[in-house]
Amino acid sequence: MSIAIIYGGTRKNGNTEMLTEHAIHGRQAERIYLDDYQIVPIKDSRHAKEGFQDIDDDYNLLIKRLLAHDTLVFSTPIYWFGMTGQMKTFIDRWSQTLRDLNFPEFKKQMQSKNAFVIAVGGDNPRLKGLPLIQQFQYIFDFIGISFDGYVLGLGNKPGEIYKDQQALSMVNQLFHKMV
Amino acid sequence: MSIAIIYGGTRKNGNTEMLTEHAIHGRQAERIYLDDYQIVPIKDSRHAKEGFQDIDDDYNLLIKRLLAHDTLVFSTPIYWFGMTGQMKTFIDRWSQTLRDLNFPEFKKQMQSKNAFVIAVGGDNPRLKGLPLIQQFQYIFDFIGISFDGYVLGLGNKPGEIYKDQQALSMVNQLFHKMV
Amino acid sequence: MSIAIIYGGTRKNGNTEMLTEHAIHGRQAERIYLDDYQIVPIKDSRHAKEGFQDIDDDYNLLIKRLLAHDTLVFSTPIYWFGMTGQMKTFIDRWSQTLRDLNFPEFKKQMQSKNAFVIAVGGDNPRLKGLPLIQQFQYIFDFIGISFDGYVLGLGNKPGEIYKDQQALSMVNQLFHKMV
Amino acid sequence: MSIAIIYGGTRKNGNTEMLTEHAIHGRQAERIYLDDYQIVPIKDSRHAKEGFQDIDDDYNLLIKRLLAHDTLVFSTPIYWFGMTGQMKTFIDRWSQTLRDLNFPEFKKQMQSKNAFVIAVGGDNPRLKGLPLIQQFQYIFDFIGISFDGYVLGLGNKPGEIYKDQQALSMVNQLFHKMV
Repeated sequence: MSIAIIYGGTRKNGNTEMLTEHAIHGRQAERIYLDDYQIVPIKDSRHAKEGFQDIDDDYNLLIKRLLAHDTLVFSTPIYWFGMTGQMKTFIDRWSQTLRDLNFPEFKKQMQSKNAFVIAVGGDNPRLKGLPLIQQFQYIFDFIGISFDGYVLGLGNKPGEIYKDQQALSMVNQLFHKMV
Repeated sequence: MSIAIIYGGTRKNGNTEMLTEHAIHGRQAERIYLDDYQIVPIKDSRHAKEGFQDIDDDYNLLIKRLLAHDTLVFSTPIYWFGMTGQMKTFIDRWSQTLRDLNFPEFKKQMQSKNAFVIAVGGDNPRLKGLPLIQQFQYIFDFIGISFDGYVLGLGNKPGEIYKDQQALSMVNQLFHKMV
Repeated sequence: MSIAIIYGGTRKNGNTEMLTEHAIHGRQAERIYLDDYQIVPIKDSRHAKEGFQDIDDDYNLLIKRLLAHDTLVFSTPIYWFGMTGQMKTFIDRWSQTLRDLNFPEFKKQMQSKNAFVIAVGGDNPRLKGLPLIQQFQYIFDFIGISFDGYVLGLGNKPGEIYKDQQALSMVNQLFHKMV
Repeated sequence: MSIAIIYGGTRKNGNTEMLTEHAIHGRQAERIYLDDYQIVPIKDSRHAKEGFQDIDDDYNLLIKRLLAHDTLVFSTPIYWFGMTGQMKTFIDRWSQTLRDLNFPEFKKQMQSKNAFVIAVGGDNPRLKGLPLIQQFQYIFDFIGISFDGYVLGLGNKPGEIYKDQQALSMVNQLFHKMV
């Protein structure tokens, strides 16, 4: 079983990354830092005659890297009580991939995966992060990925996540399941 | 009372726009089509020595247009059970504006406004759109905007929103409150 | 198509009942006022050797009345951000009925029905009533009832619901669907 | 700091009780097993001339026991994706106590407390139990109790909770906070 981490954060070594790496605990994993790449926001062309147009950015490359793994960890700081815009823009593009002849097996491939969500925020994340978890539940249900667990951590200033004993102990449990 | 509509959609005259214009009913309003502008995703620099760096894109211009109005209508198609990446990227940038010396009154100005959300989706939006509404509730609570109402509409193919009698009748009620 | 209204309220002619009757609009319907009956809280006996014991109260009679109809309207004032204890106690007993040899077709019969929820509260019900709607969603999904719509109304003092134009117009739309 | 556990379950030594006692870890605590007492469902009399009528059941005694403690642990199996009817019926009565001249300080006393929720269910509780947590959030916000943490555990058959390592490790963390 191989792991891909999709990082939605915009600050290297942020609290969310720290918590996620604590969960991974030195295991091998493919790390995709979305903010390092150019990902163009989707243009809804489902109903356009010509359909979706190919986009010359890094998205397809990232999807290929993601598809090569069994377990997906969506790791995002909580911005405005949701995933980051970078991560949402990435997921929005799945609508295009679902109709992309170059990825004819996209949905089927996704359905064989399982997913975890790790999200860290500074404002009562274990309560105010719940709509984000529910959104991920609908996302995973829609595409058919098994949603196997999540951790909501508390952190604001750099390193503060290490004070959140509950989150640290929860990701340890996630880790056991992942391996 | 003046109205700004923040459009998060990526298709002109889409169902969300139709429903919103049905609500506006010919009234004067400032229309901000986020997808027509360049909005760079935020880089979290709250903890960086040098702080946030000025970004040369259209965001500040759009915020100024938004701030000139009393009522904000956030109008977004439901993509993956949330607002569009375009709209999320726009809202994420508020974190920078809150610390931008060029907008010293940003939070205070926002607190004098009231907001509505109009969102249209194709997959059971009145149930599966609820996490999005809860997210907006936390967003508005955080910045201090009064959340005065929302409508979740059902639509997939172009024009389908006109079959959703419940949504049409609900936006009519929103409209009465807005004016 | 015949309708049963399950009333969870404890005050006759309360706002929730008014809104529901506005929706029904004089149509024939079976009205079950839970508070008028004795319904004993469930004793979880799923894992007891002897299983569930017959209970001598009004519950089975009410379930029979409910089962005779195609459309179920769950109508409850919002108490402490949920359905009333009376309604919850009634629904909890379904766990016993699911295992009751006198109701061998209970689940199958329920699965042929559709349901609506009407709930009225005094504290921002269209936002703070959303967990209740999500709970009903899971309840209906579990037993297999189709969840066809809901209305959250605002009312505190007797009759105040008639000022909630949005709720009144929404139940009118529900009504059209029901018939 | 003294602890009261309000047990909503209907089966002695059920999974929820096991998880809660694992959290308490032998500490002294007042245990209130709601199902052992007679608690009459509320009759909404806020708008009645004569107001609420005294009820001759065990409720007031239980409230006095609860009020004597600083920390409240609401411990309930998840029935139909919510708290048990027994617990809801108990909480509904708070509306009467808020207006009861024999408890003039009820709200003020409650506001000095902090609360935890422990809930165990058999059907994906960490996702499908979220509306219950959000309901408790609104309940505690309304009365002014500080909501200091929750654990959602997975268990169906007797003793199954001991397989849920994540829940066990989470309640250990709750426990550290409680003391």
